[in-house]
Amino acid sequence: MIDGCPPGIAIAPEDFAHDLARRATGKTRHTSARHEADEVEILSGVYEGRTTGTPIALLVRNTDARSRDYDRIAEQFRPGHADYTYWQKYGARDPRGGGRSSARETTMRVAAAAIAKKWLAERHGVRVRGYLAQIGEVLPRSCDWAAIESNPFFWPDAAQVPELEAYMDALRKSGDSVGARVTVVATGVPPGWGEPVYGKLDAEIAAAMMSINAVKGVEIGDGFAAVMQKGSAHRDEATAAGFLSNHAGGILGGISSGQAIVASVAFKPTSSLRLPARGLDVHGAEVEITTTGRHDPCVGIRATPICEAMLALVLMDQALRHRAQCGDVGEVFPRIPGQALK
Amino acid sequence: MIDGCPPGIAIAPEDFAHDLARRATGKTRHTSARHEADEVEILSGVYEGRTTGTPIALLVRNTDARSRDYDRIAEQFRPGHADYTYWQKYGARDPRGGGRSSARETTMRVAAAAIAKKWLAERHGVRVRGYLAQIGEVLPRSCDWAAIESNPFFWPDAAQVPELEAYMDALRKSGDSVGARVTVVATGVPPGWGEPVYGKLDAEIAAAMMSINAVKGVEIGDGFAAVMQKGSAHRDEATAAGFLSNHAGGILGGISSGQAIVASVAFKPTSSLRLPARGLDVHGAEVEITTTGRHDPCVGIRATPICEAMLALVLMDQALRHRAQCGDVGEVFPRIPGQALK
Amino acid sequence: MIDGCPPGIAIAPEDFAHDLARRATGKTRHTSARHEADEVEILSGVYEGRTTGTPIALLVRNTDARSRDYDRIAEQFRPGHADYTYWQKYGARDPRGGGRSSARETTMRVAAAAIAKKWLAERHGVRVRGYLAQIGEVLPRSCDWAAIESNPFFWPDAAQVPELEAYMDALRKSGDSVGARVTVVATGVPPGWGEPVYGKLDAEIAAAMMSINAVKGVEIGDGFAAVMQKGSAHRDEATAAGFLSNHAGGILGGISSGQAIVASVAFKPTSSLRLPARGLDVHGAEVEITTTGRHDPCVGIRATPICEAMLALVLMDQALRHRAQCGDVGEVFPRIPGQALK
Amino acid sequence: MIDGCPPGIAIAPEDFAHDLARRATGKTRHTSARHEADEVEILSGVYEGRTTGTPIALLVRNTDARSRDYDRIAEQFRPGHADYTYWQKYGARDPRGGGRSSARETTMRVAAAAIAKKWLAERHGVRVRGYLAQIGEVLPRSCDWAAIESNPFFWPDAAQVPELEAYMDALRKSGDSVGARVTVVATGVPPGWGEPVYGKLDAEIAAAMMSINAVKGVEIGDGFAAVMQKGSAHRDEATAAGFLSNHAGGILGGISSGQAIVASVAFKPTSSLRLPARGLDVHGAEVEITTTGRHDPCVGIRATPICEAMLALVLMDQALRHRAQCGDVGEVFPRIPGQALK
Repeated sequence: MIDGCPPGIAIAPEDFAHDLARRATGKTRHTSARHEADEVEILSGVYEGRTTGTPIALLVRNTDARSRDYDRIAEQFRPGHADYTYWQKYGARDPRGGGRSSARETTMRVAAAAIAKKWLAERHGVRVRGYLAQIGEVLPRSCDWAAIESNPFFWPDAAQVPELEAYMDALRKSGDSVGARVTVVATGVPPGWGEPVYGKLDAEIAAAMMSINAVKGVEIGDGFAAVMQKGSAHRDEATAAGFLSNHAGGILGGISSGQAIVASVAFKPTSSLRLPARGLDVHGAEVEITTTGRHDPCVGIRATPICEAMLALVLMDQALRHRAQCGDVGEVFPRIPGQALK
Repeated sequence: MIDGCPPGIAIAPEDFAHDLARRATGKTRHTSARHEADEVEILSGVYEGRTTGTPIALLVRNTDARSRDYDRIAEQFRPGHADYTYWQKYGARDPRGGGRSSARETTMRVAAAAIAKKWLAERHGVRVRGYLAQIGEVLPRSCDWAAIESNPFFWPDAAQVPELEAYMDALRKSGDSVGARVTVVATGVPPGWGEPVYGKLDAEIAAAMMSINAVKGVEIGDGFAAVMQKGSAHRDEATAAGFLSNHAGGILGGISSGQAIVASVAFKPTSSLRLPARGLDVHGAEVEITTTGRHDPCVGIRATPICEAMLALVLMDQALRHRAQCGDVGEVFPRIPGQALK
Repeated sequence: MIDGCPPGIAIAPEDFAHDLARRATGKTRHTSARHEADEVEILSGVYEGRTTGTPIALLVRNTDARSRDYDRIAEQFRPGHADYTYWQKYGARDPRGGGRSSARETTMRVAAAAIAKKWLAERHGVRVRGYLAQIGEVLPRSCDWAAIESNPFFWPDAAQVPELEAYMDALRKSGDSVGARVTVVATGVPPGWGEPVYGKLDAEIAAAMMSINAVKGVEIGDGFAAVMQKGSAHRDEATAAGFLSNHAGGILGGISSGQAIVASVAFKPTSSLRLPARGLDVHGAEVEITTTGRHDPCVGIRATPICEAMLALVLMDQALRHRAQCGDVGEVFPRIPGQALK
Repeated sequence: MIDGCPPGIAIAPEDFAHDLARRATGKTRHTSARHEADEVEILSGVYEGRTTGTPIALLVRNTDARSRDYDRIAEQFRPGHADYTYWQKYGARDPRGGGRSSARETTMRVAAAAIAKKWLAERHGVRVRGYLAQIGEVLPRSCDWAAIESNPFFWPDAAQVPELEAYMDALRKSGDSVGARVTVVATGVPPGWGEPVYGKLDAEIAAAMMSINAVKGVEIGDGFAAVMQKGSAHRDEATAAGFLSNHAGGILGGISSGQAIVASVAFKPTSSLRLPARGLDVHGAEVEITTTGRHDPCVGIRATPICEAMLALVLMDQALRHRAQCGDVGEVFPRIPGQALK
């Protein structure tokens, strides 16, 4: 459900297809073998191809759920998984794939963000992009936006793709999984989006990213690297020609500066492994737990469009809130040009 | 303003004093020389020493503002500071210390959290503590909770305090600043606090921490270290005797597991420096900017009680929300003992 | 979408059927001739017949929309209808029946409230009922709960039903419509539900009722009759045997008193009439407007289950919020028995 | 606390004085004898006489509280008062005047609305006014806006003022109280403010009015009179010259039509009377309760500025939300002139 969306945005089922395909499983051997159709049915809020301003309801059905995969784990708590916490919170749990703790839940985030991305681009010239910035111990040797969409990893250095493929093949064979880091960047965001106390732009980005399954960390700009920096190095100086750096990641005091918004996100390694682990069942008995379903060896691989989606949704919300409060402030100061993005 | 607080909590002005003193400036040469009285006036919501259940209003006045310190910067945008973003958002800015982008704003967070800490401790046995986990390149060589409150840095290794003092003295003399990392830990949190989609416990912690001035990164549990971990190492196995590790930082699927909640926070180095920087003034002219006010060379030093405060506020909110929805679920499964905290 | 619903509530598609049938059109000649199947598909949040605690998504499709009925009015603003305001707000409008300004939108309110009614009854013994308290100038001569469900008007005096049928037949023949008053009553609500400032119980009931299509007024207890009352008559005195009256309608200071909650709601006469009216089209030209679709001559007739639904939803929300804040207050004072309901 | 207020609004302590004086007690013998200074201290959010866009905190202290007046009732539940419901909800109660269930609480609503009224007038030409439309059985014989501010009752017919004074004198002498009806009108509201499902303009007005102490009913436009109207009479026809009537009270489908917004509010008679009543004390004993404090014989007399305040606050909220979502829709259709207001 999307409420409060501006009217008049041209939107069609096909508009969702691009990013949903980027997020989808089953396209390479490196992700889960599930083949979800990811067809978006628009239930309301769009008339003659344009948003009406009233609530938009989108429906994407699970078409490749194999609930029998979950039979064995219905009575077990997989280590590192939400099985146990759901059980303790609610006294019950839906063990089938596609529940609210499944990465399947992110489908709708990507679908909704297709509208946000379109609006941000058309109305403000904002572009939201991302890439896989680390997988296990592997780091990109270069960063080329053109490379990212040409490999299944969203990896910014095309030359490293064979290395990554070998890495993933070995990982898959071992039955293990690995973590990853995703970096997302929004260019074209004007200065002024965000709030001073509640609803700070960076706080909302942090919540949005941390709400994605398997995320354990969020950074804005230099993030944890700032711990070791001196203030004289971190602060982004400016001249009339523009900012000289972008350590802040485009946000100061909770409000966008006009530079590129840069956020990095840490994904933990998947917990659903073929390798046995010690755990408990719902009767409290110690059991050896293995997972045989179709799971990703690295959830971070498909996470780039999800992180982009969350950034786009937060930015559009903030853009609308800014228009609400400051729609008549006008351009108060010639915008300082932003630094070329990270 | 605190709304929705349970009635009957014994609270007195003195209850705020402890944490406010921990947060206060002016106690050592390593923090800003401001001497704020930090006296809390309870305007409403407390009667005969107990909360009434109706909104609580607290007032702490600034008593040591020296607005003249800000005269020179009223027309300049300090690099790395919210001056520019406020100006662009609102078309105006209150340049005096104590504005919403000042660390002074965190006083009320600490005051409000005094109530939350008390309630969490009395009602659930939850204890929220924190420490400075890194300053610049300096890391603790050991971690002893007893040491933390006995030095002005909240540093967990007493033997390193002279080294830190020398480090800070040199830093202050240089006119520069440095970043820091704070780690906060909540023990005693029962399993089940949090939400499955919106309002995930980790998402709310991330937003709460990122909303603190100068924060650029948040981690839950192993955080960014998980990027390089294998799933077989990261997932926290369990036996009937308890969890065997706590890489997750006490949260799975947005819901607490009953283990210690562990969050780490990155603070950037202060931007207000005596060292000159290139910047612009409100007329667009290039200016050399130096800041002469009383600023902290490392805002992270005083940040431990602030991070504790934000964690306590989030936990109490989540505890109440959990009681709303699941107040009658009961203990559905014998709680798995948590790992000794990080 | 229902979020925050307690887990463990037994719920099946059939549970929705009863109230949806009460709300449905097409059962008598006195309501619109549309025949909607009103089949509820549970998309999420229910597993093995019980709510899981995670968000519940319900889907009811329109199966008897005749969009061609709307062709003629697509370019006209029907007087007294939201056509004009939607057009002015959004710059566009979905003219087909079933849009957000259609009474069809209340289907989901009734569906969602089926869960709320069940929870309120099972957990708290709360019963939510309603009746048609006036139609045009016709008032009930007696009030018998048993009569209400045995006639299509929810009229509390069975003897008057033939008179009402004749009244409605004449009205329908005339092509005109008429207003109505619905009264809803919740018994068994314990004292203490509601909030002191924001979220007052009566304020939330008022908003909930006023949000129903065609509603123009809301009263709690004696409502506008209190304007002419003396304080000595209005205030509900109490003895150890109970309250002696219920002028307050069960709410004092925004919080339930333990007496029956009583709310009355005014429905305006439908604006979609066969009788021609003066209006404008989207080009600004004056046009004569008549409506030929299948519309209710009195929307109030089917409104009783809708008003019940809104009351049930507000009560369940407030019950959960009360449990959040005051779940451990306990029964502080022996409850004063309530007055037999209005 | 006011959050989200646009920056740049000129505001000074004196701006609050006008409406606070209209709301104040102690000016005539017909209202409570309390003499509150009602001095507004601006704690934050205003710099050099203009709002900064950051949260605005206002403080008005009670200066004429006589807590001893409440000693006797501290252990009694006054019939018709929130004493009992607070006690049952919270297990405790602050019996002193000025608590959250006191009409004193409306001071801040009027103060906050001074900003909203100013913004609405300057930015949109919206004017919010009100009058006392009924007191007991007395109705205005004519309605002249000029008369309203020249008498302490906000009565629209100057010729009736002596009659009202005699009425109130007799009432006060009798020790009793009486109800009242207040009507508020906002002119100049453009079409398009409001929301289609959640946050309907009329729903928010209803909640806002019902949240005022002692209110028992709310009407929009014709309100309950619509129950007896025919659709052909109620629907507001339009020609190119404008709307021909305003039965809808300026709202259709939850969205403003461009006509005057008209709301009527029912105030119950005060429950705090010198006349004894049967009630209980906190020990469950039956007691005879009389109230000796300084109370209003008709709270409706001072309620006009309070109702205006709530209408202004809702309208400004909705104006900002409309700008957020539809700020670029533009004037899509020449506005139909509104009917001269009720």
